[in-house]
Amino acid sequence: MNNEINLDIEQAADFLKLSPSRFSELLKKRIIQQNWDEYGDIFRFNSHVSDIEAGSVLFENDGSFELIRGFPKIKRAMLLAPAIKANFSDIENVAVEEKMNGYNVRVVDYKGKLIALTRSGHVCPYSTERIQNLLEHRFFDEHPDLVVYGEMVGPDNPYVQKDVYDIDSLDFFVFDIREKKDGRPFPLHERRALVREYGFRQAEFFGEFSIAKAASNITAIIKELGKKGHEGVIIKDPNMVLQPVKYTCSESNCADLRHAFRFYNEAGRDYIFSRVIREGFQSVEWNETEEEFMARCLRLGESILRPMGRSVRQVQDGERIADDSRIRVKDEKTIDAFKSYLQRLGLDVVFSPVRKIGDEYLVDIKKINDSTSDKTLGIVQGQLWS
Amino acid sequence: MNNEINLDIEQAADFLKLSPSRFSELLKKRIIQQNWDEYGDIFRFNSHVSDIEAGSVLFENDGSFELIRGFPKIKRAMLLAPAIKANFSDIENVAVEEKMNGYNVRVVDYKGKLIALTRSGHVCPYSTERIQNLLEHRFFDEHPDLVVYGEMVGPDNPYVQKDVYDIDSLDFFVFDIREKKDGRPFPLHERRALVREYGFRQAEFFGEFSIAKAASNITAIIKELGKKGHEGVIIKDPNMVLQPVKYTCSESNCADLRHAFRFYNEAGRDYIFSRVIREGFQSVEWNETEEEFMARCLRLGESILRPMGRSVRQVQDGERIADDSRIRVKDEKTIDAFKSYLQRLGLDVVFSPVRKIGDEYLVDIKKINDSTSDKTLGIVQGQLWS
Repeated sequence: MNNEINLDIEQAADFLKLSPSRFSELLKKRIIQQNWDEYGDIFRFNSHVSDIEAGSVLFENDGSFELIRGFPKIKRAMLLAPAIKANFSDIENVAVEEKMNGYNVRVVDYKGKLIALTRSGHVCPYSTERIQNLLEHRFFDEHPDLVVYGEMVGPDNPYVQKDVYDIDSLDFFVFDIREKKDGRPFPLHERRALVREYGFRQAEFFGEFSIAKAASNITAIIKELGKKGHEGVIIKDPNMVLQPVKYTCSESNCADLRHAFRFYNEAGRDYIFSRVIREGFQSVEWNETEEEFMARCLRLGESILRPMGRSVRQVQDGERIADDSRIRVKDEKTIDAFKSYLQRLGLDVVFSPVRKIGDEYLVDIKKINDSTSDKTLGIVQGQLWS
Repeated sequence: MNNEINLDIEQAADFLKLSPSRFSELLKKRIIQQNWDEYGDIFRFNSHVSDIEAGSVLFENDGSFELIRGFPKIKRAMLLAPAIKANFSDIENVAVEEKMNGYNVRVVDYKGKLIALTRSGHVCPYSTERIQNLLEHRFFDEHPDLVVYGEMVGPDNPYVQKDVYDIDSLDFFVFDIREKKDGRPFPLHERRALVREYGFRQAEFFGEFSIAKAASNITAIIKELGKKGHEGVIIKDPNMVLQPVKYTCSESNCADLRHAFRFYNEAGRDYIFSRVIREGFQSVEWNETEEEFMARCLRLGESILRPMGRSVRQVQDGERIADDSRIRVKDEKTIDAFKSYLQRLGLDVVFSPVRKIGDEYLVDIKKINDSTSDKTLGIVQGQLWS
């Protein structure tokens, strides 16, 4: 499938300032890859090309090309105070916004309809349906040159299910607005004003703090967010010239570990390792009492062993291990579209029968984790660890 | 250096049942690699070749070739009861010996002198000096066809320093005796009798247990060993026909983690991960009370965060992180030989001035862990985690 390229290669290459032969080569190597079905003329970048980030997306809209830039990778502070001093010493104040725990999408108009592009540059059918009801199209008519970057958050979330935000189903929180042509971000307060004007929801703003006082203020914010099970913050140059920095709560690191160790054989070693390391640095920076330190040790150990134990016991009881999530749609057709989308991405999923609730349809999704199930079953049957 | 091959390639190839061209190719690819200095005509296998294990060693002794087989890899039980049932169902009883925490060496006679071969097949100058005083040469004169496999254990240990065994300096504990020609192991009780006859020390024997009762007996042994800070056990077919299986104490897993997290950026992700996973399975198999489970969680978390915190604080205080160990020799020349040996293996080591104690010389060794020191220093100075 998809052998036919729905694109004028010469024109597209010219728009990207690449030679046609280089562009053809990138297509052939699937570094630039074509979408499918109704989005068959949308192309995504599977890795970095020249100054274009991985996850960037190219398509023709109304006869002219558009490049939607990928999500810039935000680096993480391990020790907050030195990280703020080293990375923001050229400015007076940093602005702090919440980093919510969901999944990133970029929203743009495509042929008169809003589409939601994932981090990798796929068009997610579920997010695309949801976004129609969450964002007013008027914004995109009035600002055809802008891309809205935000977080999809809530319990009806097939990727990162979180109940901590007091959201009934799924909502979209803007955290960035950028120009299509060069990816230039709006200054923070301009962006917040614009988002407010259209009534979109956006990531919470905690204030601006002087470089000298930022670390202690952010530590206090992080402790409060941690208590609520929220993820963390993004520390930004209000003018969005310097690169933002992220920092997260211990409780969120541990929540990640709890999820990872349910599926211990699928979880990436680096994913696990980096979360453990964050705990080590935060513990030192917070200069904890022995009691606080022991509470952190216990929290870390429990985040690892309790979910893993649960998985082993499930397999001992003859079950398979699966990751449960849920979607809620208005258009029943989205269910099948989303299922085939996940399968195309290589996921093994089981969809429950559809339940109608009000004017919407609810489906439970089980992502099957064969690797952890099989490995655990082997051990339960006496297999050795090589 | 070492460009000249001190070996008759045709004869050596014939002895190994390889073609001369294959043997030459293995030398060229450094799969078979020559030692240096006085051991320049000893060759080691850097990986598996035909049925010859990695770590095997080839040399000429008295005009005939000898192949010293590598250490067979022993697989690990994650859940003891099913592992014993699945792996030893063909026999009535399993024998249980202690697995000590030190480093493995093989001892053979080479040109009239005992040499100690490490797991990788190197001749360790320190272990070689020590072994002269620990094993009587008479055994090797009377049994020229045998190789002695054992563990070097104690505080004067440059590889794995342990104070838990009530050993003053360094001692050698036999755990295996094998035939040179085919690597066939001695049956356990024959081996123990032979070792006793020559007065060598050997790994403790805990008894033989029926397959049905072995798991509960071994669990009790493991809990006692854990309390003493010892490592674990090897479960063996007394006839040494079936492959042995190892199983370790929670306290030993945690001790490994404590060491690994002091040097968190050097430690292998898989090394860390596998130790954490062992805790998860043991916790389930032992059917722990909530109190025991929480104690295990705390022990795990503390094994990770306390040593890591110590390293971060050391770097904050301007220090570099190093792994301290110690050697004790009779012949002062061994010190330089051992230092250049470690440097050849790529280690960055600092040797303290020599102290004379009785008729021996003591040297403290610092292994410099640049990777953890540099990474931590970067973070202390505000570097971000990508």
